[in-house]
This record gives sequence, C-alpha cells and structure tokens, in this order.
Amino acid sequence: MLRPSTLLRAARPQTAARFATAARLYSSQAPQLAEVDVSKLVIQRTQTPGQLKKEEELVFGRTFTDHMLAIEWTAGKGWSAPRITPYQALSLDPATCVFHYGFSCFEGMKAYRTSSGELRLFRPEKNMDRLSTSSARIALPPFDPKAMVECISRFVALEEKFVPKKRGYSLYLRPTMIGTQPTLGVGPPGSALFFVIASPVGPYYPSGFKAVSLEATSKFVRAWPGGTGDKKLGGNYAPCIVPQQEAAKRGFQQNLWLFGEEGYVTEVGTMNLFTCWINKDGVKEIVTAPLDGTILEGVTRDSILALAREFLTKEGWIVSERKYTIKEMAEAADEGRLLEAFGAGTAAVVSPLRRIAWDGGVGGTQRDINIPLQKGKEAGPIAERIWKWMEERQYGDVETSWSVHVPPHQD
Amino acid sequence: MLRPSTLLRAARPQTAARFATAARLYSSQAPQLAEVDVSKLVIQRTQTPGQLKKEEELVFGRTFTDHMLAIEWTAGKGWSAPRITPYQALSLDPATCVFHYGFSCFEGMKAYRTSSGELRLFRPEKNMDRLSTSSARIALPPFDPKAMVECISRFVALEEKFVPKKRGYSLYLRPTMIGTQPTLGVGPPGSALFFVIASPVGPYYPSGFKAVSLEATSKFVRAWPGGTGDKKLGGNYAPCIVPQQEAAKRGFQQNLWLFGEEGYVTEVGTMNLFTCWINKDGVKEIVTAPLDGTILEGVTRDSILALAREFLTKEGWIVSERKYTIKEMAEAADEGRLLEAFGAGTAAVVSPLRRIAWDGGVGGTQRDINIPLQKGKEAGPIAERIWKWMEERQYGDVETSWSVHVPPHQD
Repeated sequence: MLRPSTLLRAARPQTAARFATAARLYSSQAPQLAEVDVSKLVIQRTQTPGQLKKEEELVFGRTFTDHMLAIEWTAGKGWSAPRITPYQALSLDPATCVFHYGFSCFEGMKAYRTSSGELRLFRPEKNMDRLSTSSARIALPPFDPKAMVECISRFVALEEKFVPKKRGYSLYLRPTMIGTQPTLGVGPPGSALFFVIASPVGPYYPSGFKAVSLEATSKFVRAWPGGTGDKKLGGNYAPCIVPQQEAAKRGFQQNLWLFGEEGYVTEVGTMNLFTCWINKDGVKEIVTAPLDGTILEGVTRDSILALAREFLTKEGWIVSERKYTIKEMAEAADEGRLLEAFGAGTAAVVSPLRRIAWDGGVGGTQRDINIPLQKGKEAGPIAERIWKWMEERQYGDVETSWSVHVPPHQD
Repeated sequence: MLRPSTLLRAARPQTAARFATAARLYSSQAPQLAEVDVSKLVIQRTQTPGQLKKEEELVFGRTFTDHMLAIEWTAGKGWSAPRITPYQALSLDPATCVFHYGFSCFEGMKAYRTSSGELRLFRPEKNMDRLSTSSARIALPPFDPKAMVECISRFVALEEKFVPKKRGYSLYLRPTMIGTQPTLGVGPPGSALFFVIASPVGPYYPSGFKAVSLEATSKFVRAWPGGTGDKKLGGNYAPCIVPQQEAAKRGFQQNLWLFGEEGYVTEVGTMNLFTCWINKDGVKEIVTAPLDGTILEGVTRDSILALAREFLTKEGWIVSERKYTIKEMAEAADEGRLLEAFGAGTAAVVSPLRRIAWDGGVGGTQRDINIPLQKGKEAGPIAERIWKWMEERQYGDVETSWSVHVPPHQD
C-alpha cells in the first residue's frame, strides 16, 4: 500500500525526528518542498466578533476565540501559507485518515497576560518541538518549531482581547496536527492539516489547591517500551477514559499508571508525577520517572526539574529522574519518609496528591498510601513553592528566557 | 473532568462490553435511551448518481459509492434514526474529540455477489460485535450488532450496482465510529457518529498469489498486555506506519510484530499470522497466536481456525491457538519442519510468506527464515486450500450460515 510519495517520505528520520535532519533530507531530494513561513501569513477576519466571557463562566475547552490558525501540508508541495480565518468547522471526506487510523497529535500550551498587560507564551518552542516529533512518529510532517511559534504568536496577538486580565487566568492554546488524506489505504498520509484553536480558561484551582486521590492501576497499561507513550498522540488518550471511569466509580479522581510486575510509578492521569521523600540514604529527594520512552516529555515536568535543580539543591535536596516503584512509596509512607507527591502538567501546573489506593502488587494486599499535606492546606510545601515559581515565570513577574513576548498585532 | 452523563455511562461494562449487558444497564437507569432501529431508516437519494468504475481501475479505498449510512448517538438520547444520505463531507468543529484524543474505531468487511447475482455479507455480526466492543473500550457507545447489520444490509442493497459482478471483486465496507463532542475536556464523549462508506475493490492478488517478505520487528511494539491491541482502534494503526516505512526501505513488504524478549510471534502488518509446521512431536500443526489481549480477534482468523478444524484435523493436523516464538520458527526451518506461513485478514484473505528477516533476538545474529512455497507457485498448499474454502463461502458457492443474504432494495 505504498504510494509514490512514500519513497521520499521514507527518508525521514523516524523515531525522534528533529526538523533540522528532516529538512536536510527533504532539501537534498525535493528542494521545492515549502517550509512553514510566517511571512506568507494571510488573515481573514471574522465578520461577527465575539467577546471574552465573564471570568467565572470560563470552562476549560468549551468556548473558543473568534479565529483559528490553519496551515495545510501536502507530500508534494510541503507547507502552504499560514492562514488565520474565522473559527469554523472542518469539512472532511468521511474516508479521511484521521477518522480511521489515528493520525492525530496535539499540544497544550497557554498565553498569559503580565501585570503590565503584555502577552507571553511559556516555552512555546518546547511544545512545537514535541509536536514536530510526535507528528514524525506517525508519518505526519515535521516542521521548524521556531517558524511555528511565530505563527502562533501572530495568532495570539490577533486574539489579544480573549486573553483574560485576571491572575491565574490564561488563553489555552490547542495546536493540533491531523492526517487529511481521503483514502483508506493504510500508509503515510499524503496531506495533513496543522491548526490551532484557543480557549480562555480560568485557574485549575480557583479557591486554592484541592488534593486528589489516585487509584494505582496495573490492569490497564497506558504505555510500553517500543510504543508511543512518550509522544502526544491522540490515540494515547481515548484508551485512558474507561480506566478513569472505573477509578471514578470507586471515588478516585485519577489513575496512577503503574508499569510491570515491579509496579514502577510512571504518570498520573494525563500528568507527570513528582514524589518528595527522605530516601533510604536519609537525603531529601524529589524524584520523577525517567524519559525511557514510556513517559510523556512534559514541558511542566522539565520546568519543574530545572527549578528544583536551581532552588532546592541549595537546601540539600537531590533531584532525580529515575525509576522507582509504588512499593518504595508505600515503604516511605510506613516509615514516615514520604513528604509529598504531586502531578505536573499544563492545565493544573501542579496537582497535589493526598492518597493512593494500591492493590499491593503480586501477592500483596490492598492498602492506602497516605501522602502528607500541610496542616489546614491541600498541598505540601514543595508543591506550593514550585507552583509559585512557575506562576511567577509564566506571568513574567520574574523575567526568564522561558517567557516569550508576543508582539502586539499590527494591521 | 467528569460530566453529568458520566454517571450513567460509567455503568457500562468496560473491557469486553457486550450489548446485552449494556442494554440492560441502560434500560434500568435510563429507559428513554433509543437503540439502533432499522425501522426508522430514512433514505435521501443522491441527485448525481455515479457508476461502478471499470474493474481494472478499482483501487482499494479510493473511490466510493453514491451514498453513506450514518447514525448519530448522544449520551442523553441514545441512537437517532439511521440515515442513508448522499456520500458527503463531515462538517466537524475543530474542537471535536476525534481530532484530539483518538476516539475512533472501525471495521473492514465486504459484500460479495454470488454467481446467481445475489448479494451476501460474510459473518457481518462478528464485525459489528467487535466494533461494539472496540467502541465501549474507548467510552464510545456499544450497540446491538444485529440491528447494525440490518442497517448495513439496507445500505448495501441500495448500492447494489456498485457490487462488482466478477469473481474476486467485492464491495469493501468501512463501518466507523467516532467521538463527536466538540469540547477539549478529556472525558467520555457525549456524542458520537457511526457511519459506513463503501468502496468497490478488486482481488488482492489479481494474477495469483504473490508471497511477501517480512521484517521481524521488536524495536517497535504494536500491542502489549493491558493495552488495546485486541481492539480495532484508529490509534493502533498510525504508529505502525513508520516501522512499515523502515521495513520497506530494507526491501520488506510488512512487519512481523514480535513481543517480549522471548520473541513471541504475534501478527503481521495488519493481519493475523498462521504457521504450518511439523511440531517437535512430529505432528502436523497449524498454529496462530492466542487471543491474550494483544492480538486482534480477526474474523478471517476465526474463520480459518473453524475451517482448519473442520477439514484439516481429518488429515492428521492439529489446530492450535497458542503462544510460539520466532526462535521456534527458525528451528523448524533449520530442521526442515517449517511447511508454510501466511497472514490472514479481510483484504487479502490469506497472504503467503516467503521469508522473514530476524535479528536473532537477545545475543543472536541476524538471519533469514525461509518459508517453503510450492514449486512454481507463490503459496503453500494449505494457504491455497484455505483461500479456496474461504472464497467458496464468501461468494456462496458453498452455503453456510456465515454467508448472509442481503435482500434487494425496495422503494
């Protein structure tokens, strides 16, 4: 089922494609393939402009801004001119490959308004680099992350009025890549669509942290070595809903995904997981699972690791990316060494945990792992501090290279 | 991120949902939810009827019939009236969950024309039962397979002129289920769309079998215990394209998916795999991997097992569903015990193998496993016979309960 275009596209680096390599291969074989080019951006404004809803009415991902950004790609021509158009339905042949074979990947990122009113993106190139890598893993086109960030920046500038002013609020951005080839042969899509929609959102915890309870899950397995759990593919998400519903029936907010008989701790729901404990050597350690191919390379995860290395190591903490097990967490809890644990992701930034229910593993018995919180609070001190460090950088209170200025729109 | 409808839907059996159970749970809690009802079928005929292309011009999944079948579902109302409409684009909000979270599953099945001109479906209830199960696994609605087969039968009858007359040709049917909720919260879709499109297709091997070479693949892993490899989810397919491209670069038509350090033989490309050998006890054995959660429950697989049990056991064969390894295949080849091997699926029915390249596993060395073919032919004798038994039943030469009559359309 290989089509002519396959010969060219097979030359792409396949597992961890980086644009530079891909572009080199392309250019040596097909110099005519166009790259993403913000200078070609075409803007078609809506005739029916809307308004930002009242802040208290904002629900994640339910209402969207006036416009969307879209860039088409074909195997023969590469990337077409970026277009900002009124937010509109996609009209797709029912044979389109995204409906049949899971050709979709996406990102979650946010635009923030600083206290002086300026707009900022937070580490957007990390997201675009990851999307390019996800895309290449499923035979969709890679792209230059920098060029894509420029397009997104222009889109955010145009939608400026939809970026809430209130602290804790932001404009959630959803860059998405789908295969659009309208034939049923199982092969690399000859066409694709990159698009970005934007939804104004409120803080995940409007009235302070609310610690969650997890069900440690080993019956369902989210990711596997040699699989695609480290990529942000659409197909990784749908299978997690039923486990989440089962956990919810038993009173848990999220799954803690375990791996293997050893019960390795991997991720929580759709977030990375950090555990803080006094390790067996008596040293304070903040630990998260390593990027071994089964863990999503979270931008928040990466940021937290950097912040922890900057600030916490000075206080005697060690910061680790390594495999650890639920059994080790249980032992630490029993021995009073478990300090706190929290999920990390774009939506909540940090999401403190209060309890993990675990079946005890092979031959073990069902038990709860209780995770300390501060007295009268729903978070541990490290989660609180990290959340604050992150917010200061996202909103530009503390200037870093992570916070990328969005120049105002100019007609 | 649970919505009100979750409470109801969480009551569904989750991993191997069968409609009967699901319907019972629904009816006890929400008697108003409508089921799929063929008596409500509405037909809107095209104003621009097309014609069946010349047989030699038919390419799999590229051209479609005049109409499509569509049935909408909502969590609040259940299934709406089935509609047959002109083949048309789907218009979907860019926030629709199928684009973001992999809410899609599908089936492949065929309508055949008998020598007397009648139309037949082959074991359609097996496909609809599997689709209902796939759907439930990703929090999309299950349904009554019988009712869905009736709807498909009516659709096929209307498209009668597109079912080719020539032996070996057929009308490929693509039943598809997608989540249609237009919001970004990660949760069970509150709405879905079932649709069927149809593509006239020619024989997979127009001029006789063409045996294929496989690359045994362990770097990429298609499925794993606790995952969704036994369901026909869209998200299982996109990750297989890059491995297929890599294998193609080295001259192989398909991947042979191995699992684990043991090198268990699982599937080939998008087909189940059958191996025929003299086993270590000196007995002729036809073997395929067991349905352990990592193997797609192929309808062709099931049919071949039944035929082998009916015909081959009389000739001294044993028919096995059990785990076996690539090492066992290599040993059998070395000892002259390997008789033949073939893929099995809806598209090709059987697809004979000639060679498997294998890296030798942990500590082993790269080698080829050569698979015998008949002299001057591109298939082994068992593949040939099974293919014939299948075709006789698909086209109704031999009457069985597998071949389901499609009553002619009546205006």
